[in-house]
Amino acid sequence: MYKVSGKDVIYSFSPGMKPVLEVEDGAIVIFESNDCFTQQVRSNDDVLNEIDHDLLNPATGPVYVKGAEAGDLLKVDILAIDVADQGVAAVVPGEGSLPQDAKEAIVRVIPIVDGTARYLGLNLPIKPMIGVIGVAPLAEEGECSTDTPWKHGGNMDTNDIRKGRTLYFPVAEAGALFALGDCHALMGDGEVCFTGLEVPAKVTVRLSVVKGRKGEWPILETEDETMILASGKDLEEALQNGLRPAVSAMAKALGVSWEEAYILASLTVDMRISQVVDPMKTVRAVIPKTVLTTAQIINTFS
Amino acid sequence: MYKVSGKDVIYSFSPGMKPVLEVEDGAIVIFESNDCFTQQVRSNDDVLNEIDHDLLNPATGPVYVKGAEAGDLLKVDILAIDVADQGVAAVVPGEGSLPQDAKEAIVRVIPIVDGTARYLGLNLPIKPMIGVIGVAPLAEEGECSTDTPWKHGGNMDTNDIRKGRTLYFPVAEAGALFALGDCHALMGDGEVCFTGLEVPAKVTVRLSVVKGRKGEWPILETEDETMILASGKDLEEALQNGLRPAVSAMAKALGVSWEEAYILASLTVDMRISQVVDPMKTVRAVIPKTVLTTAQIINTFS
Repeated sequence: MYKVSGKDVIYSFSPGMKPVLEVEDGAIVIFESNDCFTQQVRSNDDVLNEIDHDLLNPATGPVYVKGAEAGDLLKVDILAIDVADQGVAAVVPGEGSLPQDAKEAIVRVIPIVDGTARYLGLNLPIKPMIGVIGVAPLAEEGECSTDTPWKHGGNMDTNDIRKGRTLYFPVAEAGALFALGDCHALMGDGEVCFTGLEVPAKVTVRLSVVKGRKGEWPILETEDETMILASGKDLEEALQNGLRPAVSAMAKALGVSWEEAYILASLTVDMRISQVVDPMKTVRAVIPKTVLTTAQIINTFS
Repeated sequence: MYKVSGKDVIYSFSPGMKPVLEVEDGAIVIFESNDCFTQQVRSNDDVLNEIDHDLLNPATGPVYVKGAEAGDLLKVDILAIDVADQGVAAVVPGEGSLPQDAKEAIVRVIPIVDGTARYLGLNLPIKPMIGVIGVAPLAEEGECSTDTPWKHGGNMDTNDIRKGRTLYFPVAEAGALFALGDCHALMGDGEVCFTGLEVPAKVTVRLSVVKGRKGEWPILETEDETMILASGKDLEEALQNGLRPAVSAMAKALGVSWEEAYILASLTVDMRISQVVDPMKTVRAVIPKTVLTTAQIINTFS
């Protein structure tokens, strides 16, 4: 079992970034992840404008996985997400999905007790998830700030990235160079106010290599569904970026025309909002396993 | 029990439209609904360009509900949706969410057998829903074509409008003037190719009046959630139109500041895509009943 300290962080996913640890294919690794503010917010009186903005959105890593090469997939099984006993949420006028409506900057430190977040007199069951997770991007993409989602993963803020789920990332260079951070104890689809319930966490994953399958966007496997996690400058572009590979995979796996697969997608694929508050927006194209299995989809990648 | 024939149809929801039936508060009414092509497409060889486009998107009705007045809500309990034994789906280049990618116009007549749609060798369990459903719009909105969703309802193409669910529409004028049509046996969130599995159906609803509650957008109650169904020129605007009343209702019901309710929404409200292929796009803001009940939300309307 390996462990990466929360002091080993990156603020961008970059081609050629320097790994802090090297592990074998199939290794289990524990990542100490910081909250998106690097724990600088400790009370409701803290002011977001006054914290050190150079410390926002750290991701712990990167980890070099032996055997991973460009054109492979990095398979990430999420074995555990253990969150701290309090989290932070905030409203910043000018940010979020209603930037003009928010008039007052507020910070709320929210206790987590017995698996529920205690806020406004409500006990909200937590659903821990990972906000930032990814690998080195393609050289032609260049440096991608950890606040942005794209084909390498990054700040996808996708509610389904939870314990028991599996992600597949397109590997752009040797070792894949995997990192994660920005966990949320709780978040609605959209992350509408600009934050989830931001928490430090201890995340345990298994890192494996799937040889010779060349993906374009991260793939998430849940119990019943396969999701293509795609981003774009707005929701419409993100939706198109996620839907195109879904239709192509369906056409190829079933041996039907693109147009027939497009109809099948219209009947069975759910397009879901992940987040609308980061520099790029993220949507997931959700393909039920009753239509195609995750293996069938991945096997269409060549 | 009342019945409205599928020959009594409208092609726009208009202020002052003429009802075909008048019923008492609480009446149960069966609507014979046409498919969106008025059953003009009967085989895979039919060509959409050649059918009569004046017959697209009919809604059956409207029905005048006694006692409903401007400033009330019309409550619609969906008791049954019995669909025909075949449906139609189609790709039209230039339409849908990937308008440039679709090269060939195709029509597919898809049989429905034992509760499953038979397509491309797959047996897809049907999930019947109502695409077009609504009331007369406000006078200042004017005539709203049945192909468009807006505050009065209309072509919301929302997957959750199913048997056992309840809708609440803002009543703009005496009688509410309710109509429905455009059922789908099956559709993914987004309705990405431009059609669902379009079917004629027999829809049974109970129509009741909730006095003195003035809504802005249609509300949908499911087993576990309350959804505000909002539309806009793009997904971003639709999302804002649905989120604003959700945050306002949460602030009012819990007696907290707008900003605190905005944080609560960010943690608990899912923003979901309904459809992206109609003249206005539709999103639903989904509030869990563990946070607020439907009654609590409606009671904030005044």
